[in-house]
Amino acid sequence: MVKIMTYDVLIVGGGPAGLTAGIYAARAGLKTLLVEKGLVGGQIAFTDNIENYPGFESINGMELAKKMFEQAKKQGMEYQQGTVEKINDGLEKEVIVDGKSIKTKTVIFSVGSNPRKLGVPGEADYEGKGIHYCALCDGVMYKDKVVAIIGGGDAAIKESLYLSNLAKKVYVVHRRDELRAEKSNQKRAFAKKNIEFIWDSIVTKFVGEQFLTKLILNNVKTNKETELEVDGSFTYVGYLPATSWINVEKDKRGYIKTDHKMSTSVKGIFACGDCTDKDIAQIATSVGEGAIAGTSVAEYIEELK
Amino acid sequence: MVKIMTYDVLIVGGGPAGLTAGIYAARAGLKTLLVEKGLVGGQIAFTDNIENYPGFESINGMELAKKMFEQAKKQGMEYQQGTVEKINDGLEKEVIVDGKSIKTKTVIFSVGSNPRKLGVPGEADYEGKGIHYCALCDGVMYKDKVVAIIGGGDAAIKESLYLSNLAKKVYVVHRRDELRAEKSNQKRAFAKKNIEFIWDSIVTKFVGEQFLTKLILNNVKTNKETELEVDGSFTYVGYLPATSWINVEKDKRGYIKTDHKMSTSVKGIFACGDCTDKDIAQIATSVGEGAIAGTSVAEYIEELK
Repeated sequence: MVKIMTYDVLIVGGGPAGLTAGIYAARAGLKTLLVEKGLVGGQIAFTDNIENYPGFESINGMELAKKMFEQAKKQGMEYQQGTVEKINDGLEKEVIVDGKSIKTKTVIFSVGSNPRKLGVPGEADYEGKGIHYCALCDGVMYKDKVVAIIGGGDAAIKESLYLSNLAKKVYVVHRRDELRAEKSNQKRAFAKKNIEFIWDSIVTKFVGEQFLTKLILNNVKTNKETELEVDGSFTYVGYLPATSWINVEKDKRGYIKTDHKMSTSVKGIFACGDCTDKDIAQIATSVGEGAIAGTSVAEYIEELK
Repeated sequence: MVKIMTYDVLIVGGGPAGLTAGIYAARAGLKTLLVEKGLVGGQIAFTDNIENYPGFESINGMELAKKMFEQAKKQGMEYQQGTVEKINDGLEKEVIVDGKSIKTKTVIFSVGSNPRKLGVPGEADYEGKGIHYCALCDGVMYKDKVVAIIGGGDAAIKESLYLSNLAKKVYVVHRRDELRAEKSNQKRAFAKKNIEFIWDSIVTKFVGEQFLTKLILNNVKTNKETELEVDGSFTYVGYLPATSWINVEKDKRGYIKTDHKMSTSVKGIFACGDCTDKDIAQIATSVGEGAIAGTSVAEYIEELK
């Protein structure tokens, strides 16, 4: 027998945006359920040291996620670990979570985004066997070893700093000749003696035996091919929104289109956080969007009455 | 002799939006100055207990403001207490602060908003003599006394809860027959034995001698006039943006119009927080806007190069 439950709002995804939407929806007196398939916290749960979320001079991502989660639960948000498989639209929506049907008046998508892959030969073969996407999760395996970071943005440079305290040597392989990362972190990275930058270079192949042993690099200016021997490699070349299964209007990259109330193209469906179309994806902007989404669902439900 | 200084960005107003813009601008390597005429923290410095800013289950507003301020200073933001008198526009802008000229490439307005007044007879006579706008600041004067709160929104109800722990009796005078405040706070207020609601009523006159002694009320449904004897009164009927002196495009209520990068109608001038046109003014949305503004000035300056 399938158990039927009815909620005012079902939030899909437990990063800062979803948790903030949960705080606001629950405080507005709505029956609120958050469903998360993995760890609560989303991308921030994989971030070691956060210095730009206002109110905390420095905090571990997992710790901040836990604070937001406990706060949302205290306000009355319910939580379920599970995978949302499907959403059947209607004035009342049916959400299938691990085969079970849950009824809800509204849905908030805060599904975030996932690391992009390079799509080059060998990548699929060595994932988890030398190829990683989260230094905080897997970096400890490379104590006193040689690693490569692929990318030049905020995440790449933050994680190279993190790894430089563990690994013997950190190569940063970047396709351009300057970094996009925050200036303050760039300075720190340039000051590290065991971080070496390999500019104007892309990875064309991952090579190894049982585990990854080297990267084949191509210098995009000279077109010269080189080999880089490494024990492990961490890819930070951006993110893709986790929205392929979601039937609302999206931009060409897959980010969900929202208005100033965080409404999507479908009535009663809202979105917030890294899965929406915007210029700057930060914890600060995610909590802003979460607060708006949580308030907007309350207004929407009020108008249904 | 006037001392001339040059900044990348000058932030006017030190609430959560301005402080967050400061954190982001300073981290981006910009020479950043924040000018605030009063207390750092803006409106939150007058808020006793904040429960909806993600990361803090419960925090005093002044304490949160101080955390954000220290964080911004640690990131390199400079601070000056003073009043911005005038801004002379140009590719490089000149800001006059207490008669001194400061040069800056960009300006961020985070000037917030101020409490609205009722505009009825007696109001000007008894301000500070029984008429107040901040229970946290002035409530302690009314221990075991009788006070009125005028309004029915979030601030009105939060502050009535705060005062109910101090005063003998709290009347909430509201022009409608239901509250706009957050449901969770409504519940708490209805449960308080010493809070009494006077519905459908407006204040038409403040009466007293040296100090306020009573409010003249008019019931908007029956048109009946009554007197309410009080020792003090706190007005919470919304806010007006502190933007009358600012020459950028504004909406008809005076809120600064911004795009998705928090740019205003004037090149190099940005705005964020409660002084901008939006639906929901919360700390969470202010820090979101501050992060965007701080990042946008860095992009703007990069493009000038």
